[in-house]
Amino acid sequence: MPDTDLPTDLNTEYIRQLSIDCVVFGYRDGKLYVLVPELIFRGDFYGLPGGFIRQTESIDAAARRILEGRTGITNIYLEQFRVFGGTDRNNRSALERLVELNADADGSVRWMRDNLHWLVDRFVSIGYYALVDMRVVKPSKTDVDATVDWYPVDNLPKMIMDHREIVGEGLLSLRRVLDEKLIAFNLLPEKFTMKELRLLYEAVYDRPFPRNNFQKKILDLGVLERLEKKYTGASNRAPYLYRFRRERGSEPSAPLS
Amino acid sequence: MPDTDLPTDLNTEYIRQLSIDCVVFGYRDGKLYVLVPELIFRGDFYGLPGGFIRQTESIDAAARRILEGRTGITNIYLEQFRVFGGTDRNNRSALERLVELNADADGSVRWMRDNLHWLVDRFVSIGYYALVDMRVVKPSKTDVDATVDWYPVDNLPKMIMDHREIVGEGLLSLRRVLDEKLIAFNLLPEKFTMKELRLLYEAVYDRPFPRNNFQKKILDLGVLERLEKKYTGASNRAPYLYRFRRERGSEPSAPLS
Repeated sequence: MPDTDLPTDLNTEYIRQLSIDCVVFGYRDGKLYVLVPELIFRGDFYGLPGGFIRQTESIDAAARRILEGRTGITNIYLEQFRVFGGTDRNNRSALERLVELNADADGSVRWMRDNLHWLVDRFVSIGYYALVDMRVVKPSKTDVDATVDWYPVDNLPKMIMDHREIVGEGLLSLRRVLDEKLIAFNLLPEKFTMKELRLLYEAVYDRPFPRNNFQKKILDLGVLERLEKKYTGASNRAPYLYRFRRERGSEPSAPLS
Repeated sequence: MPDTDLPTDLNTEYIRQLSIDCVVFGYRDGKLYVLVPELIFRGDFYGLPGGFIRQTESIDAAARRILEGRTGITNIYLEQFRVFGGTDRNNRSALERLVELNADADGSVRWMRDNLHWLVDRFVSIGYYALVDMRVVKPSKTDVDATVDWYPVDNLPKMIMDHREIVGEGLLSLRRVLDEKLIAFNLLPEKFTMKELRLLYEAVYDRPFPRNNFQKKILDLGVLERLEKKYTGASNRAPYLYRFRRERGSEPSAPLS
């Protein structure tokens, strides 16, 4: 059950003007998705799962707590990718609209009204992305969310503030590191066929990868381990299964070596 | 002349608990260097050029102002690479030692003493790296720095807090993006030979790159423009000069395309 307790004293418990926003990428059937909760309040408030950093926790621990609190997701691949620090980054218009449209609500809306001076300040936000296998990870919604759904990365709802831009930057960062940090396996089941891996690359980079060339280049990286064939009935055409050698770790390889 | 004005009111002018630290990489004659100022005060205080973020400036603008203020360097390639956010990140021991060892000094030491409660708090720090051609960029020291010198990346002085770790993470990030973001030219003169480029790669990755293989792979990237030969006297052996096609921009290429 996600923890949705609202802090009683933002001023002493949390770092001011610093937030975390999480882009949770999921993959299924050749398509890349992003997890976007919608708040229960009137006004269509969609946004990334985000929150603040406690004085007593590291930023990484805060990101995990926030993600778990808003989506119920635990123990997944999570990495910071960029800081968003423009002077105009604040939730003032969205929060004032929310409080106005939902003046009759109590609980969390009253909490927002009481803490509005703190919440509408300028915030520098640290962007994290997470990678999950959608067939395994099932997000659960909290009592402040009406829905917590997967949206195709090319068909997101209108989101508050600069959250669409944060998703876009997260995707650029993912493209930059998919090979060298060997994190694609986080989006796949442990064993997969070459075709399944190629379809994942096509979804992330949003363009086709020629079959033979893809297979040669990815095998040349030396990061895949070939396993048994995947028997599906027509055994003479059964494709091999592969898995990533995880022990290669996160040390970046020298691209021109 | 760098701007070293100390703020009169940290509380209202700056974001609390958030700082910026800059790793300035320089390159010369096959070796990679980092710029490390040493404070004028007694006690051997070496650290990265760093500072805080004004309420009225973006984090990128803050990084440029801080870098200019502490080193006199303007108009160079500068990019955020990672946030350092452990709970134990504070300058308490270094600052208390500095104030104690330099109790007789006035000016900036008095300012530190007056603002100690603000300065010794936990800080989350955004790491930026800069790339400069050491033959062109000449850092200038401010009145709080005894020296501002280049140190080989593998032979840095003892630095305050986690600044050595920040340098190490900056170098890992530089290795990750040297090709795909096409930023190596920032460390080189506009025109260079294949050998000069290879020596730069060897300095950044700290290992040899076989000559023929390097040339083939980097030409295959299609990012270099071949220019005239570099005549040095023995004209029959003159190597070609190259330059980067800058218009390729920062869009990451798909590594397995």
